[in-house]
Amino acid sequence: MYRGLVEKLVQKNDSKILLAVIDGLGDISIEELGGRTPLEAALTPEMDRLAAGGALGLHIPIARGITPGSGPAHLGLFGYDPVKYQVGRGVLAALGVGFKLQHGDLAARINFCTLNEKGIVTDRRAGRISTEKCVELVEMLVDIRIEGVVTFVLPVKQHRACVVFRGNDLIDDIGDTDPGLVGHRPVPVTGSDESHRIVREFLQKAGEILKDCNPANFILLRGFALHREFPSIEERFGLTAAAVALYPMYRGVAGLVGMDIMKCSPEDTTGQAKAVKKALQGGHDFIFLHHKPADSAGEDGNVQAKISAIEKFDRALPSFLESGFDVVCITGDHSTPCPMKLHSWHSVPVLIHGGPQRSGYSSAFSEKQALAGALGSFMSTEIMPLLLASAGKLAKFGA
Amino acid sequence: MYRGLVEKLVQKNDSKILLAVIDGLGDISIEELGGRTPLEAALTPEMDRLAAGGALGLHIPIARGITPGSGPAHLGLFGYDPVKYQVGRGVLAALGVGFKLQHGDLAARINFCTLNEKGIVTDRRAGRISTEKCVELVEMLVDIRIEGVVTFVLPVKQHRACVVFRGNDLIDDIGDTDPGLVGHRPVPVTGSDESHRIVREFLQKAGEILKDCNPANFILLRGFALHREFPSIEERFGLTAAAVALYPMYRGVAGLVGMDIMKCSPEDTTGQAKAVKKALQGGHDFIFLHHKPADSAGEDGNVQAKISAIEKFDRALPSFLESGFDVVCITGDHSTPCPMKLHSWHSVPVLIHGGPQRSGYSSAFSEKQALAGALGSFMSTEIMPLLLASAGKLAKFGA
Repeated sequence: MYRGLVEKLVQKNDSKILLAVIDGLGDISIEELGGRTPLEAALTPEMDRLAAGGALGLHIPIARGITPGSGPAHLGLFGYDPVKYQVGRGVLAALGVGFKLQHGDLAARINFCTLNEKGIVTDRRAGRISTEKCVELVEMLVDIRIEGVVTFVLPVKQHRACVVFRGNDLIDDIGDTDPGLVGHRPVPVTGSDESHRIVREFLQKAGEILKDCNPANFILLRGFALHREFPSIEERFGLTAAAVALYPMYRGVAGLVGMDIMKCSPEDTTGQAKAVKKALQGGHDFIFLHHKPADSAGEDGNVQAKISAIEKFDRALPSFLESGFDVVCITGDHSTPCPMKLHSWHSVPVLIHGGPQRSGYSSAFSEKQALAGALGSFMSTEIMPLLLASAGKLAKFGA
Repeated sequence: MYRGLVEKLVQKNDSKILLAVIDGLGDISIEELGGRTPLEAALTPEMDRLAAGGALGLHIPIARGITPGSGPAHLGLFGYDPVKYQVGRGVLAALGVGFKLQHGDLAARINFCTLNEKGIVTDRRAGRISTEKCVELVEMLVDIRIEGVVTFVLPVKQHRACVVFRGNDLIDDIGDTDPGLVGHRPVPVTGSDESHRIVREFLQKAGEILKDCNPANFILLRGFALHREFPSIEERFGLTAAAVALYPMYRGVAGLVGMDIMKCSPEDTTGQAKAVKKALQGGHDFIFLHHKPADSAGEDGNVQAKISAIEKFDRALPSFLESGFDVVCITGDHSTPCPMKLHSWHSVPVLIHGGPQRSGYSSAFSEKQALAGALGSFMSTEIMPLLLASAGKLAKFGA
């Protein structure tokens, strides 16, 4: 895709676009399904109806053979080159808990851990303490004051938290202090930059505060990353976008490109449908809807759970659509094949319905049908131009 | 493909990869085969079995419409951008005979030729002298001494030899002396650089030595090229690679990317199978196996010979596989359609078996089946990331 071309051709109109992401949707042949994939095996009358009247294809998340993390996979779907727009783990963690990062903030992931009397790490996750315990421990750390920066400590989940330093000219060339294995001391922060001094002081103060806590008597830091602001989806594509996503991670990535994050009750498609409706009523013309359970099932290797997750999404689809969209795209961010129990590099089926679409050989929504679809195979970053075009939001190039 | 992305994600493991190249594999519809291609017409039960359990696609060697030489075609298969990593013919010739080129060496191809008494070229190949005669003539030239460089002259095959100059600051901006047609004098080497002076002196001394030989009484030089070292396949992809190839050219290209070149007896698949086994036992985890006869048959326009060559490879396939590979890729370096008797730009069928693969609509190995395969069409340089991913040798990109 030519850089900057789409942006120059954007023309606004009243069309509404839904980008529905079934996380980890793609899969491979599964023996217990007679060689079918969960999407092929699932009963999905609603998606099949859209497929029959729309266009199908397969998207490649990053590049052939490259397995994406969730962050880059979603950035690709939003039209952001995931290699150009890289997001560090610390930044994702902070965005994921809804923290409003500012340009230049230095963020890192925290793991509460257990040290023995010799300072050796004996448990890198402090026995996977509860989230309540995590919140309690974070409360003890939020008062740490370090000269030259404002420090924010935020609970995430179980033994996971994150820290954000806000100051001037911070750098993120700081190695993980997590040794990666028990039986070793935390890796010391060396380096003479002001940022190294700040992190060393934070670790020292945290160690003093936590030293008598059991089992979480210290912290390990990972994924130091500076936050840099991305051009927003509004600036680039003229879209007023909203995210309906339950999990912090996806809310975080959506926030990174300037989407408004809708409130909605967890694990509940009815709540999501309400949030979609509210977002449209609130003047948004692009809704990113995130559906998590298929990915979790894939990571568990649970074929039936993945089928159920896809079927659940399909049953809920009419409630998402009744708000009225001109263009609907249903896809996944990446594949999470059940036999692998991992994200993978395999391409992901894409369905676009609404606007003028060409029909291919496909009549239902699945990996195989998508292979015979009118859209062919293409990069994830090409979805956004296809959606904008389908919605009449792109002008002609040249005379 | 993003430059350098794959290299950053490489993770080593014990998986073994076979890249089997049937040279010139791709073809087009042939009337005498009822519109089928030789690969479609050939009986290939072994490859069809792998196809049914693997993933198929088509690779584009350089770019759509571009016909590759064997050098760039193979570099693409090895994951090297063939336009970025260009190799001159002189360099390929020297590598092809196993000469250990050093960075900065200037190499050129030699053709022994026949001049008449007026110095006009009457035969550009000196009557295709025997390889024994070639060796004999080269023996006469190896003692040429030129100030400022060390000179190596190497026999290749029949009327073909090559020359390498080793010195400082040599350049390869030197035109062919081969006029390309009989009835003309050799093209003189003009230019005032030290390298021009060296080549002129070499030609003059060679002319004196050969002047009474018949029919090979002079030489023509072509394809001047400086050797530059490429990053090795080990550095880039973490692979300990070996080449099982009978022809010098392919051994040369494999050597260029740092593969170990296995000894094996010529024209004999049993010998090749032994070499494959030995390479694996020697600790190699990536084997490049080259099979030449299909290309030669294509260049001869001999449809039945091409079918036989493909069938011969198929019969030998179990012997190549019995050493134990986790991932097997079978493809060609380019198409050599029989009706064209030439290399062509047409895409080339690719079969990947092993590792988690998605199935498409294909159930046998052919151009048409590959069109309906799960992998779609892609650039030859994308094969290596797909193989690494299939073998579990690539980590996830981003969180």
